[in-house]
Amino acid sequence: MNRFVSVNGNVYRWPERPVVVVCIDGGDPEYLRRFLADGALPNIQRFVQEGYSAVATGSMPSFTCPNNMSIITGVPTARHGISGNFYLDTQTWEPVVMTGPELLRGETILAGFAEAGARVVSITAKDKLRRQLGKGLDVGQGHVSFSSEFADRCTLAENGIEKVLEYVGMPKPDMYSMELSLFVLEAGIRLLQDRRPDLMYLSLTDFVQHKWAPEEAQARHFYQRLDDAFGRLAQEDIVLGLTADHGMSDKSDAAGEPNVIWLQDILDAEFGAGETTVICPITDAFVAHHGALGGFVRVWSRGNVSVAAIIERIAALEGVDLSLDKATACRLFDLPEDREADVAVIARKDVCIGSSARLHDLSGLKGHRLRTHGGLTETRVPFILNRPLNSEYRQQVAHSEIKSYRIFEFAINGTL
Amino acid sequence: MNRFVSVNGNVYRWPERPVVVVCIDGGDPEYLRRFLADGALPNIQRFVQEGYSAVATGSMPSFTCPNNMSIITGVPTARHGISGNFYLDTQTWEPVVMTGPELLRGETILAGFAEAGARVVSITAKDKLRRQLGKGLDVGQGHVSFSSEFADRCTLAENGIEKVLEYVGMPKPDMYSMELSLFVLEAGIRLLQDRRPDLMYLSLTDFVQHKWAPEEAQARHFYQRLDDAFGRLAQEDIVLGLTADHGMSDKSDAAGEPNVIWLQDILDAEFGAGETTVICPITDAFVAHHGALGGFVRVWSRGNVSVAAIIERIAALEGVDLSLDKATACRLFDLPEDREADVAVIARKDVCIGSSARLHDLSGLKGHRLRTHGGLTETRVPFILNRPLNSEYRQQVAHSEIKSYRIFEFAINGTL
Repeated sequence: MNRFVSVNGNVYRWPERPVVVVCIDGGDPEYLRRFLADGALPNIQRFVQEGYSAVATGSMPSFTCPNNMSIITGVPTARHGISGNFYLDTQTWEPVVMTGPELLRGETILAGFAEAGARVVSITAKDKLRRQLGKGLDVGQGHVSFSSEFADRCTLAENGIEKVLEYVGMPKPDMYSMELSLFVLEAGIRLLQDRRPDLMYLSLTDFVQHKWAPEEAQARHFYQRLDDAFGRLAQEDIVLGLTADHGMSDKSDAAGEPNVIWLQDILDAEFGAGETTVICPITDAFVAHHGALGGFVRVWSRGNVSVAAIIERIAALEGVDLSLDKATACRLFDLPEDREADVAVIARKDVCIGSSARLHDLSGLKGHRLRTHGGLTETRVPFILNRPLNSEYRQQVAHSEIKSYRIFEFAINGTL
Repeated sequence: MNRFVSVNGNVYRWPERPVVVVCIDGGDPEYLRRFLADGALPNIQRFVQEGYSAVATGSMPSFTCPNNMSIITGVPTARHGISGNFYLDTQTWEPVVMTGPELLRGETILAGFAEAGARVVSITAKDKLRRQLGKGLDVGQGHVSFSSEFADRCTLAENGIEKVLEYVGMPKPDMYSMELSLFVLEAGIRLLQDRRPDLMYLSLTDFVQHKWAPEEAQARHFYQRLDDAFGRLAQEDIVLGLTADHGMSDKSDAAGEPNVIWLQDILDAEFGAGETTVICPITDAFVAHHGALGGFVRVWSRGNVSVAAIIERIAALEGVDLSLDKATACRLFDLPEDREADVAVIARKDVCIGSSARLHDLSGLKGHRLRTHGGLTETRVPFILNRPLNSEYRQQVAHSEIKSYRIFEFAINGTL
């Protein structure tokens, strides 16, 4: 009997063995380049040699939420609607948080499989993602959905699991620690061994990549620990897919100071205060390691200043790659029009864009160089499977560009 | 003994067996998608299953000359300098043809290997490419360089071969025929069997792809004939690499009329005649199948109109994706600044851009839909090797995006 599950128009086979997808938040290909070259990642090395690997294209803007939602729904941002952490409600002129499940359009692959009778697990580092990833998932049916951030508060009713710290055997990790990610993986390994779910999504956090460049020892140490965990996951006879939500670029100058364009200040000086609103869609509650600065921001006009004037002013700024009207941005990057700004702004690889200098707290950098993401240059992400492609998908990759939102599809339908 | 050849800073091993790279001009991945799906291409199918394949990124603008030069030099356009068929000499305000070898910066891979003692062959469909591809190649030393366009005029002194029509056993092909490409392949097969050169570059023409969409029988027939030739090439114990210079998109409306922006006319109306100059870098002597219309044009200001004003006017046009100043265009697309315009314009996938309506002759379309290239949407090209990657290059593709200009490097250094 062949069973199929259809989610958002994509058809998935019934997995023969558990499928585990890990999203290495901020997992820029540069980390792999360096650590594979020096032999530090024997398990990923084995997947690369025996399975399949490529550099895939992620969703724009290259932020965590849009890409996690693309991965978990299997469709581009225009379809699932989550194009950042915030958009501006032009009725109230207030920023609206987009990380709730109510704004996610369509169904998650996890919920689709759960409905069809599969057992699924979703574990994230930060709780902001947990609720969206868990959309439509009835944890009463044996599914699990929790974050390591709130690992100490899990209940059977809310998360399908309790006493997680004991279960995993690790203390509650700090929000700014590599353990926040490692906890996700250790919990995943344990659940895989105990419950052998059909589908598992493990989404990490990019604290390490924001803080440390590939040449720094802490980054290497983190990747070695990831590699060790990936090896133990792969031992459980699974299909393992590894990707990232976005890359990570150094955006500081030679002196170590962040290259920042304070766009709200510039637009206020040009057009007057209150005429335009800059939203930094990377903003969330935990921004110490990047100060809510990214490579992509959105600008709305209150109505008195023309979009063309805003675009022209921004395009003239040193450090801006693209300054696009709504229609062009949506067409080029497959974004939802109803949540897009009048102007979408993409910074150069070594530059980030903020709102007003007074609204960003950079004290959390504590002498570190600013590393962040959001632009075009951070859309390139690893796409690695521990098993080789089957003949159908070998053919696919001969004619189709690989989008990271297809990682579940490749893992489920595309491997031997 | 390990021998190495260094060309433009890239290091190549000495090939153990002949390396043959074919550039399928206009070989959009859509052709492969359709014809692989219906089993029409058994040889390419075998390469896909037994070798390596991916969709690679070509050079911008997605035209023939820039990409052929990228492929044959192994470096991006900013390095080799050939960013189109024409640029504007701002001293004389005259368009300068860029297809001569004197404007090509650096050395070709063929010339580098020839110098090191290898025997090399370069065959092109159109003669405009032949001279540039043959730069620095002394055909007196047993090398061969000719075009099927001038196959009847080859001399030992100029081309390293004579009586080519007899040798290949085909009549001289028409400039507007699929035989112009097939002649290149038949000549390559014959030379491979007779002389077994170390390196061979076979560059086709996109007459078929401009004229026929993947769903048309003539396109299928052409690809079947290509596939048959590729099979006979691969029989000769070679490394075969297949790529394309650019893709191809339909740029007509529902009624079959071309979607054209006549940019010079628009700019003349806005700023006055003579104030701006639009150059269509796709233009060459043989334009019947596309009327010199492509998805990318360059605009220079005579000095009275600001670049910002030109960009703003163009960005407001329906059908334009990007309107970029020189620095941004060069940064985003790795283009040479000294040959770039004040403004680089990239059309939407279904739109092309011309100069003045009166300067383009579309009569050559003869009722066909306009299919052409030049924009971002046509930078995705096939990248296929008949042999699997070695472990070093399996690792490469895990962390590096594949650029089509690396096809010789992959074929020479990267295969088992």
